[in-house]
Amino acid sequence: MKSVTEYLTFNIDSKMAFMNITPQVEDIVRQSGVREGLVLCNSMHITASVFINDDEAGLHHDFGAWLERLAPFNPDPNVYHHNRTGEDNADAHLKRQIMGREVVAAITKGKLDFGPWEQIFYGEFDGRRAKRVLVKVIGE
Amino acid sequence: MKSVTEYLTFNIDSKMAFMNITPQVEDIVRQSGVREGLVLCNSMHITASVFINDDEAGLHHDFGAWLERLAPFNPDPNVYHHNRTGEDNADAHLKRQIMGREVVAAITKGKLDFGPWEQIFYGEFDGRRAKRVLVKVIGE
Amino acid sequence: MKSVTEYLTFNIDSKMAFMNITPQVEDIVRQSGVREGLVLCNSMHITASVFINDDEAGLHHDFGAWLERLAPFNPDPNVYHHNRTGEDNADAHLKRQIMGREVVAAITKGKLDFGPWEQIFYGEFDGRRAKRVLVKVIGE
Repeated sequence: MKSVTEYLTFNIDSKMAFMNITPQVEDIVRQSGVREGLVLCNSMHITASVFINDDEAGLHHDFGAWLERLAPFNPDPNVYHHNRTGEDNADAHLKRQIMGREVVAAITKGKLDFGPWEQIFYGEFDGRRAKRVLVKVIGE
Repeated sequence: MKSVTEYLTFNIDSKMAFMNITPQVEDIVRQSGVREGLVLCNSMHITASVFINDDEAGLHHDFGAWLERLAPFNPDPNVYHHNRTGEDNADAHLKRQIMGREVVAAITKGKLDFGPWEQIFYGEFDGRRAKRVLVKVIGE
Repeated sequence: MKSVTEYLTFNIDSKMAFMNITPQVEDIVRQSGVREGLVLCNSMHITASVFINDDEAGLHHDFGAWLERLAPFNPDPNVYHHNRTGEDNADAHLKRQIMGREVVAAITKGKLDFGPWEQIFYGEFDGRRAKRVLVKVIGE
């Protein structure tokens, strides 16, 4: 069994954003030489997500508006107890639960085995600082 | 390390539905000959889910009503910008984020290592066309 | 390829709770002897979750209040059809979909390859009985 571990760093200059990281993951898979296996791709931070959906700007707008409705930003420590720690990012921890921490994808014949519209995204919910994504390939 | 990759195709004749695909996944695991490993089962489409929950019709009704409340269908492109593309399925992309893209399950002694009520479902949120699920077994 | 399978049992004495199970998973990873691989950690019950987030009591309070808002407890079988089975836990099945069933984490150089704040939690939404979590390590 082969394995390769890589770390990607992102520093998004807004609070919330969605960034297509498929090319970076494809590169790691290609360079791994793994023909059949799995790739795990996860946020190493708990106010960010890695998920698979569509690379369409209107949908990303919809994701943002929808997440804000389900888990609104509110720095008030009476609304979110987490903000009693001095942080103001409780909403980002909730948004990340909706969008998920990680993706596990199949590698078949040396490539990401994806449907026609599948693209991997880094979802940032508390940006303006450097944060990491782990990519781990295992297989043969 | 052994690996097996199979694709299941579903053509659900309604917009939203939940279909138990555990027997198909069990068959693939059995035929793989893998005794110890993992099976990844994911939707290859971004308006559908694979998830594990209960095979109970009342609960499936509740899932449908709840998802409609959290992410209502609305073709209006002023409500969902994704629908400015000419599509009307923005809500299906959101519903899929709640229910998830994929399941990773353990294979132990040649079988899906499941709790008493765990069953694997294909969740369709934008049906009436053929869509695929990938099943990948790795292990020994 | 090595593999190790362990089962953890929890009997939480409240309906909803979040319990840090990182030490138990770390022990299983260490004892497995796997240096490079993956660990799957999933609830074997469909009214509970395994997820990764912050070990902060205020945030856990916020998770509880938020989940109750998105998927309120209601034993009324007219509200949740699942409760026509004689159960009263439909809300717990919904809460678990938000928080997820499972976590797949990387093992690098013999350890959980985690960001600075990542901790693994068992999320209980229908407690007061014994329930199990599966931990499966694969790798070399």
